[in-house]
Amino acid sequence: EGADTVALVSELDVHVGEIMSPPIGTVSPDTTVAGAIDNLVHRKSVTEVTYFYVVTQSGVLQGTVTLRDLLLSKPGQVLSEIMTVDPFSFSPETPLSEAVQAALGKRYRLYPVTDEEGVLQGIVYGWQLFESVAGEINAQTGTLVGLDKEERISTPFLQSFRMRHPWLQVNLLTAFAAAFVVGAFENTIAQIVALAVFLPVLAGQSGNTGCQALAITLRGITLGELGDYPVRKLVFKELALGAMNGFIVGLVAAAAMWIYAASDGTEAPALLALVILVAMTGACMCSGLFGVMVPLTLQRWGADPAMASSIFLTTMTDIVGMGLMLALATAIVL
Amino acid sequence: EGADTVALVSELDVHVGEIMSPPIGTVSPDTTVAGAIDNLVHRKSVTEVTYFYVVTQSGVLQGTVTLRDLLLSKPGQVLSEIMTVDPFSFSPETPLSEAVQAALGKRYRLYPVTDEEGVLQGIVYGWQLFESVAGEINAQTGTLVGLDKEERISTPFLQSFRMRHPWLQVNLLTAFAAAFVVGAFENTIAQIVALAVFLPVLAGQSGNTGCQALAITLRGITLGELGDYPVRKLVFKELALGAMNGFIVGLVAAAAMWIYAASDGTEAPALLALVILVAMTGACMCSGLFGVMVPLTLQRWGADPAMASSIFLTTMTDIVGMGLMLALATAIVL
Repeated sequence: EGADTVALVSELDVHVGEIMSPPIGTVSPDTTVAGAIDNLVHRKSVTEVTYFYVVTQSGVLQGTVTLRDLLLSKPGQVLSEIMTVDPFSFSPETPLSEAVQAALGKRYRLYPVTDEEGVLQGIVYGWQLFESVAGEINAQTGTLVGLDKEERISTPFLQSFRMRHPWLQVNLLTAFAAAFVVGAFENTIAQIVALAVFLPVLAGQSGNTGCQALAITLRGITLGELGDYPVRKLVFKELALGAMNGFIVGLVAAAAMWIYAASDGTEAPALLALVILVAMTGACMCSGLFGVMVPLTLQRWGADPAMASSIFLTTMTDIVGMGLMLALATAIVL
Repeated sequence: EGADTVALVSELDVHVGEIMSPPIGTVSPDTTVAGAIDNLVHRKSVTEVTYFYVVTQSGVLQGTVTLRDLLLSKPGQVLSEIMTVDPFSFSPETPLSEAVQAALGKRYRLYPVTDEEGVLQGIVYGWQLFESVAGEINAQTGTLVGLDKEERISTPFLQSFRMRHPWLQVNLLTAFAAAFVVGAFENTIAQIVALAVFLPVLAGQSGNTGCQALAITLRGITLGELGDYPVRKLVFKELALGAMNGFIVGLVAAAAMWIYAASDGTEAPALLALVILVAMTGACMCSGLFGVMVPLTLQRWGADPAMASSIFLTTMTDIVGMGLMLALATAIVL
């Protein structure tokens, strides 16, 4: 099935060499047009040759000849006269993300793969490149929350359970970390219950801000853009965005806290509002930072940068968001 | 740029007719092989023809002729003798997701597009199909949390801010809904502060369970699998998965609550543990249900099924998860 083919392919760190096929249609430079057509006619599968690859005796790729070139030439001409010299080629070490970028510009059906001496090592189809990246990207949304790349809506119940459950246990463990932080301020909450009401607001905002930064970073990794773009610049941008988004959202949330606390009879509603504003700004800045660093760290460790990244991220944003609010309230208001 | 090309394409409800190009290389059935080669030689751009499309005077597509067919035939033969009759073709109304499924199996470079009378309307390239879906899928991870499809790591700061901020305000508004529910139980929390500590645990687990269901549903929509798979079956599966995952995770969380409440001197630790178990199971079942229904509802309303779906989803799971725990505690423990 097509869908499964898409799903079964490749990690982000796959290279062209791992998906290429052995070369088909290699010929020597002195082959004539008539000889090449003869070669074509006598193949078992006449459809398999898209290009002829003109290679020297030592296997170095000199040029390519299309069927169109053969049609437009005289039978006696030799291929070295009509070939396209120095054709575009990949190296076996070219990362797939880079190869896809190149293929989007060229849109050939087939690409030769040559080593550093120019020796033809294999061929790779354009659709293979697209398919591998489409599969990778398709899996990403689910991977963030611990959904296996291979899972489909038609996956049997018990298999789905086995695939998803371990990550939910990991999530529980990380949620305990956030709960531990909240627990440390149990005394504060007992005195100012309004803070408990704002726990989901802090967690939700910093989590969503962090996930935006996470998604843009994963987008950059997948499309191979992070090679040219300095990580420091991305970190600063997300920190600044977190500060600005957190401050503005924090103003609204602070106003809500003021109204809530005042109507509730809680003491020092203005101070509580200030706590929310500062905590929201700080938490969203950290979320921007974590959103960039979580996938990059996973990648540096050799893991899939998307794998369960949202689970790790939201734990960190939960801890910082709720912890900052409770710590500030304890320090300023109590 | 390649990456931008990927990004700029198409919504999920695009059809083949909207991305097809006008046909190139149409010829009449009585054209000879020599005539077709002559046609090829006299084109401005010799590379533009991949297939000759043999059409009747009324424009009905009868067959296709490849350059390879021309090479292997005699100059005097007419194309109707050597063409592949009844070639595979798309209709202008074929949805892109379906076309990609078909293209993954066939892997042609180019597909003809014909209307219900068989009249050739245009052609569509294999890479166009892959590109459009890759772009769609690539955007999805970010779309869930309100990240614009067009945003890149290199997008200027203020533009990023303008693109992301509105969704953060939406998220804040929905977080207030969850806070409102918690606020309704302020009295319960004031009496049993341990419940506040478990708020992030409930919210985190039901949110992650819901996002798994959301991701698998979006995967099904994007890959066009939901056409053949009944929604009711998917809902039942996700409800059952939520129940099983919620129950097992709930057992661990209940044990943690028991230990925490007991060591804390809170009254009725066993009852609180039961509250956690029931709330976790119920919340995760609702998360499974919402995870399927949120994208399907967005789609039914004519919206992008991924758009901000995780924001809507986590609000609902927050409300059910935390609300169920606090309501149960109020009813059973107080």
